[in-house]
Amino acid sequence: MLVRMDEGAGSADVENVVRAIAAGGGDARVVGSSVVAVSGGAGERELAGLAGVASVEPHAVPYKLVGRAVRPEGTRVRVGPVVVGGREVVVAAGPCAVESRGQVLEAALAVAGAGARLLRGGAYKPRTSPYSFQGLGEEGLELLAEAGRAAGLPVVTEVLTAEEVALVAGYADLLQVGARNVQNFALLKALGAAGKPVLLKRGMSTTVEELLMSAEYVVAHGNPDVILCERGIRTFETSTRNTLDLNAVPVLKRLTHLPVLVDPSHGTGRRDMVSPLAKAAAVAGADGLIIEVHPRPDEALSDGPQSLTPGLFASLMGGLAGHLALENRSLAPPGGARREQRIDDIDRQVRRLLDERDELAGVRGDCHSC
Amino acid sequence: MLVRMDEGAGSADVENVVRAIAAGGGDARVVGSSVVAVSGGAGERELAGLAGVASVEPHAVPYKLVGRAVRPEGTRVRVGPVVVGGREVVVAAGPCAVESRGQVLEAALAVAGAGARLLRGGAYKPRTSPYSFQGLGEEGLELLAEAGRAAGLPVVTEVLTAEEVALVAGYADLLQVGARNVQNFALLKALGAAGKPVLLKRGMSTTVEELLMSAEYVVAHGNPDVILCERGIRTFETSTRNTLDLNAVPVLKRLTHLPVLVDPSHGTGRRDMVSPLAKAAAVAGADGLIIEVHPRPDEALSDGPQSLTPGLFASLMGGLAGHLALENRSLAPPGGARREQRIDDIDRQVRRLLDERDELAGVRGDCHSC
Amino acid sequence: MLVRMDEGAGSADVENVVRAIAAGGGDARVVGSSVVAVSGGAGERELAGLAGVASVEPHAVPYKLVGRAVRPEGTRVRVGPVVVGGREVVVAAGPCAVESRGQVLEAALAVAGAGARLLRGGAYKPRTSPYSFQGLGEEGLELLAEAGRAAGLPVVTEVLTAEEVALVAGYADLLQVGARNVQNFALLKALGAAGKPVLLKRGMSTTVEELLMSAEYVVAHGNPDVILCERGIRTFETSTRNTLDLNAVPVLKRLTHLPVLVDPSHGTGRRDMVSPLAKAAAVAGADGLIIEVHPRPDEALSDGPQSLTPGLFASLMGGLAGHLALENRSLAPPGGARREQRIDDIDRQVRRLLDERDELAGVRGDCHSC
Amino acid sequence: MLVRMDEGAGSADVENVVRAIAAGGGDARVVGSSVVAVSGGAGERELAGLAGVASVEPHAVPYKLVGRAVRPEGTRVRVGPVVVGGREVVVAAGPCAVESRGQVLEAALAVAGAGARLLRGGAYKPRTSPYSFQGLGEEGLELLAEAGRAAGLPVVTEVLTAEEVALVAGYADLLQVGARNVQNFALLKALGAAGKPVLLKRGMSTTVEELLMSAEYVVAHGNPDVILCERGIRTFETSTRNTLDLNAVPVLKRLTHLPVLVDPSHGTGRRDMVSPLAKAAAVAGADGLIIEVHPRPDEALSDGPQSLTPGLFASLMGGLAGHLALENRSLAPPGGARREQRIDDIDRQVRRLLDERDELAGVRGDCHSC
Repeated sequence: MLVRMDEGAGSADVENVVRAIAAGGGDARVVGSSVVAVSGGAGERELAGLAGVASVEPHAVPYKLVGRAVRPEGTRVRVGPVVVGGREVVVAAGPCAVESRGQVLEAALAVAGAGARLLRGGAYKPRTSPYSFQGLGEEGLELLAEAGRAAGLPVVTEVLTAEEVALVAGYADLLQVGARNVQNFALLKALGAAGKPVLLKRGMSTTVEELLMSAEYVVAHGNPDVILCERGIRTFETSTRNTLDLNAVPVLKRLTHLPVLVDPSHGTGRRDMVSPLAKAAAVAGADGLIIEVHPRPDEALSDGPQSLTPGLFASLMGGLAGHLALENRSLAPPGGARREQRIDDIDRQVRRLLDERDELAGVRGDCHSC
Repeated sequence: MLVRMDEGAGSADVENVVRAIAAGGGDARVVGSSVVAVSGGAGERELAGLAGVASVEPHAVPYKLVGRAVRPEGTRVRVGPVVVGGREVVVAAGPCAVESRGQVLEAALAVAGAGARLLRGGAYKPRTSPYSFQGLGEEGLELLAEAGRAAGLPVVTEVLTAEEVALVAGYADLLQVGARNVQNFALLKALGAAGKPVLLKRGMSTTVEELLMSAEYVVAHGNPDVILCERGIRTFETSTRNTLDLNAVPVLKRLTHLPVLVDPSHGTGRRDMVSPLAKAAAVAGADGLIIEVHPRPDEALSDGPQSLTPGLFASLMGGLAGHLALENRSLAPPGGARREQRIDDIDRQVRRLLDERDELAGVRGDCHSC
Repeated sequence: MLVRMDEGAGSADVENVVRAIAAGGGDARVVGSSVVAVSGGAGERELAGLAGVASVEPHAVPYKLVGRAVRPEGTRVRVGPVVVGGREVVVAAGPCAVESRGQVLEAALAVAGAGARLLRGGAYKPRTSPYSFQGLGEEGLELLAEAGRAAGLPVVTEVLTAEEVALVAGYADLLQVGARNVQNFALLKALGAAGKPVLLKRGMSTTVEELLMSAEYVVAHGNPDVILCERGIRTFETSTRNTLDLNAVPVLKRLTHLPVLVDPSHGTGRRDMVSPLAKAAAVAGADGLIIEVHPRPDEALSDGPQSLTPGLFASLMGGLAGHLALENRSLAPPGGARREQRIDDIDRQVRRLLDERDELAGVRGDCHSC
Repeated sequence: MLVRMDEGAGSADVENVVRAIAAGGGDARVVGSSVVAVSGGAGERELAGLAGVASVEPHAVPYKLVGRAVRPEGTRVRVGPVVVGGREVVVAAGPCAVESRGQVLEAALAVAGAGARLLRGGAYKPRTSPYSFQGLGEEGLELLAEAGRAAGLPVVTEVLTAEEVALVAGYADLLQVGARNVQNFALLKALGAAGKPVLLKRGMSTTVEELLMSAEYVVAHGNPDVILCERGIRTFETSTRNTLDLNAVPVLKRLTHLPVLVDPSHGTGRRDMVSPLAKAAAVAGADGLIIEVHPRPDEALSDGPQSLTPGLFASLMGGLAGHLALENRSLAPPGGARREQRIDDIDRQVRRLLDERDELAGVRGDCHSC
């Protein structure tokens, strides 16, 4: 059951609906201006009669909280001062792995200068072989955070286990779940309480629906700030490392209100293919990109063959701007979230004042229906 | 062995190289200004010494004739007055199946008006079920050709069997091999002698290399005019009909000199996804698109759910133009081939005159090396 | 609509049902003792009232004629004196390609001696590369047929095109459709009128349902004698040439009445894996196997790495016998069809006599219901 | 580098080789009677000259410790009194999830009675949806262990996170890593120190090589007792839940010395297909099976459609016995490990005595070469 609230409905109205569902034995969650009964609950007619309720609809998708219908206007996820989702397209860039202070700082400054709004870099690296470089660990987190501060960029990095969530969240602004962990449900549950937004990468053989169910885990466990990421799937084709599934972009945009990024670096595995596919992803409707950039790809400890040089990255960013303009979108400007934040603050204050006025006037609920 | 000829080499020089390879027991083919020994032949040193030879290289790819190295500048395929390959991007559009005179004519005029340069439409339809509409057959060919003439568009249509090649070639300007026939070698061989260019669609589970080998069949059997087409591959994902593999576009452009089209209609199977993926394909470097357009998709006898209306198609064409301009390309203008044809004519006349002069002067070969 | 006839129903009863369906605008086909309305037709109640009708059921599967319900007892396909389908398991064996009189004769005698009941061998070879050995053509057919006669084995060989069906049917007892042609509908239609049974191989990315639809093509076009063959599908796994899908065996046995063979040679691509997977396939319920055997695999012109030596094949046959006995099945003995044929002859004569008696007694139909 | 030791080599000889490799900067591990340099180390000639060394070979596979060459005779993993690996085939059976004391006890007694040697049952269930039954947690572990004791069966159950390894290892005899965690490297590392053997399931899209690399993680982190399990891969086919890849059985047996189980329950997803595929897996060479059995599958909280009834399971076990006998194998008898254990004890005592004698006689090394 999906209960949409009136625009003017107050928080007391919302709580009222939640209570009614709970009273009927159901489990209700609030997402934006909707209340979702993820199970059982009060009847359609009863809910429809409550104050502030705009509509009550059946809600048959299994991904109750992240389904598009719950928030048709889309979710905007704040990563520090950056907003992911909406008209502005956010590019995260940086090295596959944090290797040294110099390397990550050089990368950070380069990508910031070219217009990236987030710095990526791995401190804990999941590697197929136990004998490959596994990342610098916490030292890597420190170097990444330091480089992010120096370049004025919030940082995104991978967290591998539930127990490391708190540690990583102490350094990172956006917590990445890698493709191999997309159905690591213990990790997803822990991220529900992480207090930081989550970047959830699709697995190599994860269906779109399974990806949404994994996002649902995070949201159902308390964290509404999830960003999805298509990064290539595994097929019979061997000429590229993965097959980037750009079909997934419009499909996801229709099925969910969560923002969708694309990772053309892993999606292709080849430097010369990153730019064309990055632009293609943007044109297909992605809300952002995540791109591997290394000051000297040939010396990279991992994923060198798919890393852009700073020069190639800058050139890609130039190309992206034009294509986005044609789609009535733009690259996110620096500090672009501040204005939005102010608007939201005002909205919240107005709402609070109106709620108070309602209460004082003793007419709460009634006025919403006139 | 790949023998590149000097720019100024004459046809007698080329024949000389072919003869030298044949004398060594090899099998030589001429593609553009290269001679390829698809097997055996004379030694590297011997060939390098012949008149007009610029370089002799080993040529290890299995797709001897369609490998990029053979013609680094790329192949331009003429479809009537339309040129596929090069800076200009060609859009083929029309109904999945020819259903009636009115339907195909209406579609043809609509897509021509919106800037399509080729009319597509199926007369022989390969259908999974023997009980589904199988196409109008030769009557469909007639109606398609008639509509093409009315709209001023060359037509592309599918040919299903080797024995029908001559019949279909009597009506069509471009002969399509469908995904299910990509390894129908009897058909590919017959198309080698079709006298019309070929549009070869990748199969649902055809690797990039297999696609190139199938193209090699057509070229090796005498027809150099092959256009490739990515149309979606079969993966585990079920939310779309196929998974459009845009990675294949830059991969193919690097591996082969043949033009590459993309079919976002079959590649997605859903009307609302055709435009974003069509634009993405263009940005990723496709040399053209093939798109299903039906005057009234809801009444279509096949593939209605993935067919654009004329209105949506026109709007897509508008969007494409801008994105292509940013990539320093453009939609092919009407009659755009005429100028190119004139240039090629002049080139050929000049070459012939110079050859004649060489012969008269008895200095053929020598002058090329100074 | 699926109309099952009484055991005692006569051919006139069957014709009556067919006529009733046709009269209602439907298209009726007879398969065994069922009549299937592949489209439209008379109503359930009307049909149920006709003489000799045991039951009338809805028949929702898209593969109308090959669905299991149509012939729950299973179809037995005669290939010369060999019966495929039923308790006895038939093994076809022989070289990938017919290479010479000596090679195919040696292979034929070896596999016959080891208990194979059919001789396989390719005269027309579909090869990925135009430069690979393409088979001996009609000469190969002659050599194959000759070897089959010498060894006392009916022969199975691949036919590549509709136009070659008559030629190949002149030599072969069983016409093979290769994996790449599973949706070559022109070929399937032609095989409907071939007058010889058909071995239809599943394609590399053909779903079970698509395979059944392709079989439906052959049957709907007039040829009820189709044998299916699982030969490995294409997946992400690269350690074997294909992934043999033994799940398909019980799935197919439940969905269709057609016999199901398995090809462990292509299904694995590796000699050392053929025997374990062949036995596994038999245990999983396959009605037969098709196995590549070459006198000297190392000299084979194609598929050497997956061909068994005669010694390995004989050893496999020994192993198979025991496993089949445990499943209450057995390897088909030589000439095993003769007894069955005699039983069928008697059945037919009895049926004919009873029909005649019915007619004379003027009680046809009535007596069947008592 | 792979150093095989003489049969008679003592532990001091082994240590000597390890030291020599370490002295050369390499990293050496002992597996059975081999020493593997997983990186760098002393030269081939130097090592070959050491006492007790039988041979020194290059060792190019990336899965250094689990590659077949390291232990050509195969690894036998002890799970309580049960030995997995070797001539005897071990069947693990039980419910998908532990649901109640009664359910798991009933299942345990039934499968033990039918010849299962291990009891399976999930206490922590990874579920695609956060709203599905997630298992009873530690209570489930207690009930499982209790039922195992009652039935005389060691128990195998899934562990989802590194932090729960110690908890689960307190109850379970064999720790299962589920398909979704096959590349959860934090978990794999933790299992290296678990002190209990590990059952590692192949992921839905894990290649054979990746599976071996994941096993390598566990072994490299200190735990040599790893059992692999094929449980079906994800393909385009939708008629079954997964595609059971029986090719993987002989492939794995050739590439690794670790035992290989097959899970036909998940591999097919359908009760009626479990038995044929279980027998097929055994015949293809699996060292064991893991099968879902539920007293009342229709009431199961998870995976009911693929669970066998106790009756079907007993019937399958009867069928398996015969097929295994034909392959010169057998179902593991109860307590079958005791004899092996005694043999190993004797071996170890003899070895120790001989080592001691060597040391006293001052002739260690020399005598091994005579």
